Amino acid sequence: MTARARVIGFDPGLRITGWGIVEAHGSRLIHVANGELRPDPEAGIADRLAELFASVTQVIEDYGPDMAAIEETFVHRSAGAALKLGMARGAALVASATAGLPVTEYAARSIKKALVGSGGADKAQVQYMIGILLPGCNPAGPDAADALAVAVAHAHGLPFAVAAR
Amino acid sequence: MTARARVIGFDPGLRITGWGIVEAHGSRLIHVANGELRPDPEAGIADRLAELFASVTQVIEDYGPDMAAIEETFVHRSAGAALKLGMARGAALVASATAGLPVTEYAARSIKKALVGSGGADKAQVQYMIGILLPGCNPAGPDAADALAVAVAHAHGLPFAVAAR
Repeated sequence: MTARARVIGFDPGLRITGWGIVEAHGSRLIHVANGELRPDPEAGIADRLAELFASVTQVIEDYGPDMAAIEETFVHRSAGAALKLGMARGAALVASATAGLPVTEYAARSIKKALVGSGGADKAQVQYMIGILLPGCNPAGPDAADALAVAVAHAHGLPFAVAAR
Repeated sequence: MTARARVIGFDPGLRITGWGIVEAHGSRLIHVANGELRPDPEAGIADRLAELFASVTQVIEDYGPDMAAIEETFVHRSAGAALKLGMARGAALVASATAGLPVTEYAARSIKKALVGSGGADKAQVQYMIGILLPGCNPAGPDAADALAVAVAHAHGLPFAVAAR
């Protein structure tokens, strides 16, 4: 493994899927890009998923990440919501694995711990730390910020990375 | 629309995804093929979904269906099970829509009603009717039989199709 790695993080959803890419370069962490994908809400479910798949595939082609990271889904919602989330998550995972990226899942607590130092940190603290760790990253929205958080948590765990804080 | 259409039906699952293809040819219904996809259970979730996507894409390429049909998921299971099912369903839907197939969803009751004449029919009755409607189809397993049932239900609703029974 070289001392440089690009990581794409995802926060998938059928309505909005956030993505964020960081580059770990020795001990430095650099923001590359982030965004939010919003498939046409008027389209049928299969077309929305295909749009999500095509958009994620395009982002991967454009920025060439070496690996992907995704939050392990915290199943506290209804079965109906979990089914929808599962489909969106499936589209993002299929796009990543089809592009040849290894995908790692992280529990929400471990992402918070990597960023803020506490697994019980709230969303605002995580977003604040994203601004500190990736100055000028200017997330496209809360889902893009969450996706960057997953990418940062993964980058911090890379063999050559510095300790989280 | 011509008086000939190939329909692929799916019964998606992370462990086993059944598929079945029928051809409606005027008033006749012909079995084309069916099968069950079992992604490597030892692989990670993203790789299993990518394998499912690639296999469904291959089946579509091999048999050239014109449209796809899938059972509307009956969400009576746990949120954890719904999430897994959603991911598998997402992989099958992405493959279908990416291949340009229109996808229609059917409630389980309407599939049973189309095949057996009653929305409360049990699995055994549905499978029995599959054998009658598609003689010699020899389903690869229960999930392939369910996939054929969805395809038959869709074919019965096509403008040029005969009434269900």
